[in-house]
Amino acid sequence: MSVSIEKLSEQACFGGLQGFYRHASVQTGTPMKFAVYQPPQAKDSPVPALYFLAGLTCSEETFMIKAGAQRYAAEHGLMLVACDTSPRGLNLPGDSDNWDFGVGAGFYLDATQEPWSRHYRMGSYVNLELPALIEEHFPARADKRGIFGHSMGGHGALVTALRHRKRWHSVSAFAPISNPAAVPWGEKAFGNYLGPDRSRWQDWDAGVLLSGAAYPRGILVDQGEADQFLEQQLKPEALEIAAQASGQLLTLRRHAGYDHSYWFIQTFVADHLAHHARQLLV
Amino acid sequence: MSVSIEKLSEQACFGGLQGFYRHASVQTGTPMKFAVYQPPQAKDSPVPALYFLAGLTCSEETFMIKAGAQRYAAEHGLMLVACDTSPRGLNLPGDSDNWDFGVGAGFYLDATQEPWSRHYRMGSYVNLELPALIEEHFPARADKRGIFGHSMGGHGALVTALRHRKRWHSVSAFAPISNPAAVPWGEKAFGNYLGPDRSRWQDWDAGVLLSGAAYPRGILVDQGEADQFLEQQLKPEALEIAAQASGQLLTLRRHAGYDHSYWFIQTFVADHLAHHARQLLV
Repeated sequence: MSVSIEKLSEQACFGGLQGFYRHASVQTGTPMKFAVYQPPQAKDSPVPALYFLAGLTCSEETFMIKAGAQRYAAEHGLMLVACDTSPRGLNLPGDSDNWDFGVGAGFYLDATQEPWSRHYRMGSYVNLELPALIEEHFPARADKRGIFGHSMGGHGALVTALRHRKRWHSVSAFAPISNPAAVPWGEKAFGNYLGPDRSRWQDWDAGVLLSGAAYPRGILVDQGEADQFLEQQLKPEALEIAAQASGQLLTLRRHAGYDHSYWFIQTFVADHLAHHARQLLV
Repeated sequence: MSVSIEKLSEQACFGGLQGFYRHASVQTGTPMKFAVYQPPQAKDSPVPALYFLAGLTCSEETFMIKAGAQRYAAEHGLMLVACDTSPRGLNLPGDSDNWDFGVGAGFYLDATQEPWSRHYRMGSYVNLELPALIEEHFPARADKRGIFGHSMGGHGALVTALRHRKRWHSVSAFAPISNPAAVPWGEKAFGNYLGPDRSRWQDWDAGVLLSGAAYPRGILVDQGEADQFLEQQLKPEALEIAAQASGQLLTLRRHAGYDHSYWFIQTFVADHLAHHARQLLV
């Protein structure tokens, strides 16, 4: 059975098409918005799609508006896909009391605890439902998918690719929450979404997943050294330790003076699209 | 006497610095915000500054966030400056009743009619006060200034450069209101700001100014053919007719499929920065 999507807008951009859409998500049980940039090459034949997961408080619009990635997607012939950061409109108890939990803070996992478990299924949404939808409605190749993200979304990208290595053929991150099970943002989110048993958290922790086995291709991570969340929440050194343990090829770049913002992301986004193009366009 | 500015934020971007600031404007009699991108070259010596004037409802943030111009400014060594689109916070009668007049719609002119004439002096603000402020507080060359803008700001850029040809050394526009004295947006704004005598409007109409005498360097204008305001409000053909009359070198490019948005602007902004770099970096 075909799933329908609602077109909210489509506008020309760098010879391709920037669109915003909505659909009824089975995983979250809510309407979900998403954004797609189709590069000019997609008019001729399907192209690899590169999924971006945004950080806390962001939406499907943030990356598309602020990162300046369409130019590079048009050069390489990559589709860009961005989703929202959580279900919205549910009014679950406590879902809007904090900017770092609940609405805008789904952490790209599948919750197991009430009242979150019915709707907060962003893990399966990103890994399964959204790619199926994209590949049905847009000229996206099903055999070449890349994923990247920022902060909470950097965690989400790494975890999605590391949990499903055959489905995701390239991965990178900006300032990811690298070891969420050991930092305040992650403890709050995982404790509520996954429950108090910390052994259950490990399945959604990039550092833990990466230390167990290397991802089959190199991983690129950029981190600003003036990032206000670096020491307490992000801990990229966890990725370096994990990569050493598993023999992972990891390029972790630290940039003096850069903070946690999209000014940082836009500065280095060209390198990320080139990284994914190298791994997807083969 | 030195004028002080208040720093709201400064963040690293493409090796330079993206900043937002506020000052007390003499021209408008209000606090005014503005944004400056300093390219890496400005650390060594003063660089030309390129001023962007935004369109209706926009602010000093819009261009900086949505246009993706910093990358090219960093490549060329151009400073970017963006100001607000009107004074704010005055609560003059009727200043917020319409999205195309009053707050967010200053039209970059000096009003002569009550109650606007005391504060709505964006013409002199852009031409005189802001450059003086920038050249005092930032490493901007006073002998090389460029200006460009979008829609109402395209009108503002053309009018500013054409009225003050010795102060502005390069000019371009995205989808400018080219003949405001003859379209609904301009009739509303000019009628209120400048009064009913239409002969007074001609001093602020790009088509009229350009038909009288050519600007000493080539002018670049980009226009989307799917622009929803093209026929009723923008009328770029007025520029072509004026350029023919005065012998102006005008490159007016029409782009099939593009609308009035920043998706259009970001697609062609690289060409505008190259245009200004050619004229300013000599």
